[in-house]
Amino acid sequence: MRNAPLGFFDSGVGGLTVVRAVQQLLPAEDIVYLGDTARVPYGSKSPETIRQFAHEDVRFLLDQGVKMVVVACNTATAHALPSLMERYQIPIIGVIEPGVEAVLADPGAQRIGIIATRGTVRSHAYQHALALRRTGLIIHATPAPLLVPLVEEDWLDHPSTHAALHTYLDPMLDRGIDTLMLACTHYPLLIPVLKAFLPDGVRLVDSATTCSELVKSRLTELDLVSEKTDPGSLQIHLTDLSDQFEDLSRRFLSRSPGRIQRVSL
Amino acid sequence: MRNAPLGFFDSGVGGLTVVRAVQQLLPAEDIVYLGDTARVPYGSKSPETIRQFAHEDVRFLLDQGVKMVVVACNTATAHALPSLMERYQIPIIGVIEPGVEAVLADPGAQRIGIIATRGTVRSHAYQHALALRRTGLIIHATPAPLLVPLVEEDWLDHPSTHAALHTYLDPMLDRGIDTLMLACTHYPLLIPVLKAFLPDGVRLVDSATTCSELVKSRLTELDLVSEKTDPGSLQIHLTDLSDQFEDLSRRFLSRSPGRIQRVSL
Repeated sequence: MRNAPLGFFDSGVGGLTVVRAVQQLLPAEDIVYLGDTARVPYGSKSPETIRQFAHEDVRFLLDQGVKMVVVACNTATAHALPSLMERYQIPIIGVIEPGVEAVLADPGAQRIGIIATRGTVRSHAYQHALALRRTGLIIHATPAPLLVPLVEEDWLDHPSTHAALHTYLDPMLDRGIDTLMLACTHYPLLIPVLKAFLPDGVRLVDSATTCSELVKSRLTELDLVSEKTDPGSLQIHLTDLSDQFEDLSRRFLSRSPGRIQRVSL
Repeated sequence: MRNAPLGFFDSGVGGLTVVRAVQQLLPAEDIVYLGDTARVPYGSKSPETIRQFAHEDVRFLLDQGVKMVVVACNTATAHALPSLMERYQIPIIGVIEPGVEAVLADPGAQRIGIIATRGTVRSHAYQHALALRRTGLIIHATPAPLLVPLVEEDWLDHPSTHAALHTYLDPMLDRGIDTLMLACTHYPLLIPVLKAFLPDGVRLVDSATTCSELVKSRLTELDLVSEKTDPGSLQIHLTDLSDQFEDLSRRFLSRSPGRIQRVSL
């Protein structure tokens, strides 16, 4: 079981930002990734539909013999993680707990801005997890639905993206946030633009790095770290394949994704 | 059979702009509408996946006993219409033929700009249909993938939308287009913004109006016009339901959509 692959799933290819972080920390682990590109995005859909899709995604990964499932999608974590953990025996990790840990790693963090899909914001999963851990936090969560298509269009430094950032972020900057949580796996690609956009003193947090640390500590705790020493493999499975998804995979992974397989759920 | 409903389908709720036009022209017809909101959008997905979804959509409408199917989605028309017409006996109408007719209604139209989803542009369905009908046309087709999420966000007159329109349209305006074809059922909501944006002398064409005329003439030809005189009913079925989809339905239909039913395909 130790040498079985880690399983990751996301609504699309954004979760490859989490895969990249895990590969850097745990280079010997084999990874199976499922992106449900035939039904992407999940962020605008209803909780029931997101849960149904997430269960289908996990069943696919279980059939691949994975030793742990990483829900590399904030929307799916927000709506489906508890019901997935209830249903399946396998260890399952989401991206929200690590994101919240990363926010609270700064003991001075007090005024937290969160940008995410509509589904993630409406779930109140981040707001709830933060409020449970530190009293007196002031939290501003804003759905930023245009950022995913803008990232996918590769309009990172485009006037359209700047105008969208002003609409989404100006109200929370006016309220003096000290931390901005990027609560969607697409957003790390915007980090260079956001660094230039945000005033000094606003800390940017994304969950990919912290999530990889949690994966490592859970594997160690459960005695499931791979014994292999060669670099691990990465198998990407998508429910729809197109040139655009291949190109996006390359950008999210920062290297060639290798051969991508199309699968049906 | 004459009094059976008309069936419409789209990847989401954009096709309601076509329904609205048909209701104005044929107010006594009952209408069954299917929006595949659980898998929306189709425009970024592969031809095989779009065809598979379109066949599932038509089978749902056939089960509802419709007398004719209107493919109220440019992407699905572009990729699936021929295979749907081959498979099913029922009359099936797409939005591309009427769009092309509308463009060519002006005998002077010579330099045609087309904006659409990535899938519609890549299919070359519009380019092909135009080139077959008039020689010597100069056609500029550009994928405009951000316009659908911008319309859905209701950012019609937002700086982000203006910046996107500049990126998509300036190159074709520089080439002197005389006609701009809005080849996506979401775009009619942008008509007021586009009228202000485009220079005088560029004609705006969308397929909703022409499509409703084609529906009427086909029904007449096939002796399928409803004999009812009361206003027809509209039943909307969506594969995913959320507040956002209800709100969008209201905007695309310009009135209350009534009770929307969630269905599985």
